[in-house]
Amino acid sequence: MSMDQHRIAAETIRLLAKMRAARPLVQNITNFVSMDIAANVLLAAGAAPAMVHAPEETPEFVRRASALVINTGTLSLPWAQSMDVATTAARMHGTPWVLDPVGAGGTQFRDQTIQSLLRHRPAIIRGNASEIMAVARACGLMREDDPAARPRGVDSVHSTAEAELSARKLARHCFCVVAATGAVDVVTDGERLVRLANGSPLMERVTALGCGLTSLIGAFAGLGEDPFLAAIAAIAVYGVAGDMAAEIASRPGSFRTAFIDALDAIGDTDIRMRLRSS
Amino acid sequence: MSMDQHRIAAETIRLLAKMRAARPLVQNITNFVSMDIAANVLLAAGAAPAMVHAPEETPEFVRRASALVINTGTLSLPWAQSMDVATTAARMHGTPWVLDPVGAGGTQFRDQTIQSLLRHRPAIIRGNASEIMAVARACGLMREDDPAARPRGVDSVHSTAEAELSARKLARHCFCVVAATGAVDVVTDGERLVRLANGSPLMERVTALGCGLTSLIGAFAGLGEDPFLAAIAAIAVYGVAGDMAAEIASRPGSFRTAFIDALDAIGDTDIRMRLRSS
Amino acid sequence: MSMDQHRIAAETIRLLAKMRAARPLVQNITNFVSMDIAANVLLAAGAAPAMVHAPEETPEFVRRASALVINTGTLSLPWAQSMDVATTAARMHGTPWVLDPVGAGGTQFRDQTIQSLLRHRPAIIRGNASEIMAVARACGLMREDDPAARPRGVDSVHSTAEAELSARKLARHCFCVVAATGAVDVVTDGERLVRLANGSPLMERVTALGCGLTSLIGAFAGLGEDPFLAAIAAIAVYGVAGDMAAEIASRPGSFRTAFIDALDAIGDTDIRMRLRSS
Repeated sequence: MSMDQHRIAAETIRLLAKMRAARPLVQNITNFVSMDIAANVLLAAGAAPAMVHAPEETPEFVRRASALVINTGTLSLPWAQSMDVATTAARMHGTPWVLDPVGAGGTQFRDQTIQSLLRHRPAIIRGNASEIMAVARACGLMREDDPAARPRGVDSVHSTAEAELSARKLARHCFCVVAATGAVDVVTDGERLVRLANGSPLMERVTALGCGLTSLIGAFAGLGEDPFLAAIAAIAVYGVAGDMAAEIASRPGSFRTAFIDALDAIGDTDIRMRLRSS
Repeated sequence: MSMDQHRIAAETIRLLAKMRAARPLVQNITNFVSMDIAANVLLAAGAAPAMVHAPEETPEFVRRASALVINTGTLSLPWAQSMDVATTAARMHGTPWVLDPVGAGGTQFRDQTIQSLLRHRPAIIRGNASEIMAVARACGLMREDDPAARPRGVDSVHSTAEAELSARKLARHCFCVVAATGAVDVVTDGERLVRLANGSPLMERVTALGCGLTSLIGAFAGLGEDPFLAAIAAIAVYGVAGDMAAEIASRPGSFRTAFIDALDAIGDTDIRMRLRSS
Repeated sequence: MSMDQHRIAAETIRLLAKMRAARPLVQNITNFVSMDIAANVLLAAGAAPAMVHAPEETPEFVRRASALVINTGTLSLPWAQSMDVATTAARMHGTPWVLDPVGAGGTQFRDQTIQSLLRHRPAIIRGNASEIMAVARACGLMREDDPAARPRGVDSVHSTAEAELSARKLARHCFCVVAATGAVDVVTDGERLVRLANGSPLMERVTALGCGLTSLIGAFAGLGEDPFLAAIAAIAVYGVAGDMAAEIASRPGSFRTAFIDALDAIGDTDIRMRLRSS
């Protein structure tokens, strides 16, 4: 069952207003590259970021957070342990958590850490197409594909169209929502599937904007509604803000500034006029 | 004993010129979110930042630094140990150090670390209203207040007016200067108390600008004058630069850029014309 | 043997086109302050950044990377161990690696770590004048100079002209290319020596732009050509982009944005018209 564009815009507008009113506290255990931009994305959009990772205080903190975001970039063993403690606590307290499996498929250490985290039941997984395919593969849901098609680094070498089957299978396997984002963004809970097509190619020229999106998904997930709608709304807001920024700036330095401004400026009319789904 | 606005402006102008001429080296053990913006704040204002935290080299480095800044955001046990080593060395060498108790009152680990650091006698403590009240409470200076009023995350849920008594008591208890900053900034050494009212609401929409202010206070503290004046001057410069930036930019992305520019541009006339104290 | 300006411009244009076509994957083990800006420098110029430091996955990752960049800012013992693992793997796989000895000469811990890394044979070392002189001194190539002239923090207290002899000796000693950058940039392989004179004083007013340059040198080193040419081309691109940005912005906040834009915008004509060597 798909949702029509009108309905997606209406739900996005509703959830954005609700998120800005609630100002959800989003705890992030995220990579060093994304620390600044992810916090600024959350603040500009209207949420309250907190970067807290010490095992000594995470269980106490998770209880108060509206959502938890786990991002495996710049991974290390101590941080993997923090992620384990945090997601264990999130599950215990019923705090929804969102996984960004940065670099999945890149190394065994990365894949093992991600597999271990999946046991704690994320509400939503967001990655680029290659990462979503790699997680599905590591879960044994897809056959081993051509190793030549594996990502060298942290960027995708696949389109999200290629990742749709992996996303559906992974969503069913993990009982969660899976989003594979790129030129077209695919969101599925295993049954329903929505494609969104906003955003600018410049978003891949600014570091950690994907990580920032995962943090914003956390903010919407923290509202306690259907995680499928939460993921769609966050991705729609992000993409429309990208369109708005691309009208102001055409190069990555000024685009970054314009994008943060757009997350602050974005309103109902922007969403209603610009949102594109299929 | 208060200081009138004319005197505060004159001292701020004098100390800013002295700081820019001296270009004090400010060692920061600060959180991952603030690393970039705190260094850029110091550079733009005219100081020399250094982010050095390893226990293996900190004692050697602190000796050469004009001031040390300790910020408890993104705290972990190894970083808490680094902070202990650094503040021990600072005390031994007479290097003034400034504490930013990010997240005070949020978790037991945070509060215990902060209490432990206080033994090494900071020259200045700067936090938001809720953090200053939490530190005072943890020192046993204030009765336990309503737990519902405790901050969920790292943002303040109190005004600085509510924090004045805590600030005064904490300053007397620790023999240091305490600054609670927000819409109105309060600075006290336990006896004297000054209120400053510059700055823009946009400053809370850009991550880690509070951390950047603490680093700038470090730069002024490194001049070796009265820490009460140092804190006032740094806060005045920061607030006036915020006013200047808010005339150029109205959203958080462009505000951040304009604010760094303003810290570079700010001159005597800006301070004289714009400074507001009460 | 020097190279004339015409030849340097031609090689820079050729290598920039080659780098943008190849989009080399550059693994960075760099300091926390530079994480964001170094990744954005690489993305804007046309390379693919990856920040990966865990010993558990670094050997696997280095094999796929086109180049490795090691930067000793915000050093700690665990990160020094990561650097050791990464450079060992780089040497084994023939991946060229570039060293940025941030803070060399500042502490014993910093100097010992750098000496230990040199055993794994960097292709290129880039630092400011004081850092290059400190590394040469620690290698026993120069007599102990005036301790009063040692850097207090991470900024240079020497001009690159003073560092030329150290750079030459260090290049011969380590069988590598050495670049000392500043108002004038000096690049040498021990025999050949080129001086470049582009760039803006504003580049020292934005944090970690030196670190970003080292990462860009990594991107050019990853092309597998003569490291001497790679270092020159990266430094030339960086300096010309600095000139371009300085025509648009005159203060550090807006300069940073304009500089990232310029790394994206820079083309053959910019290099041909603006490059200055001596």
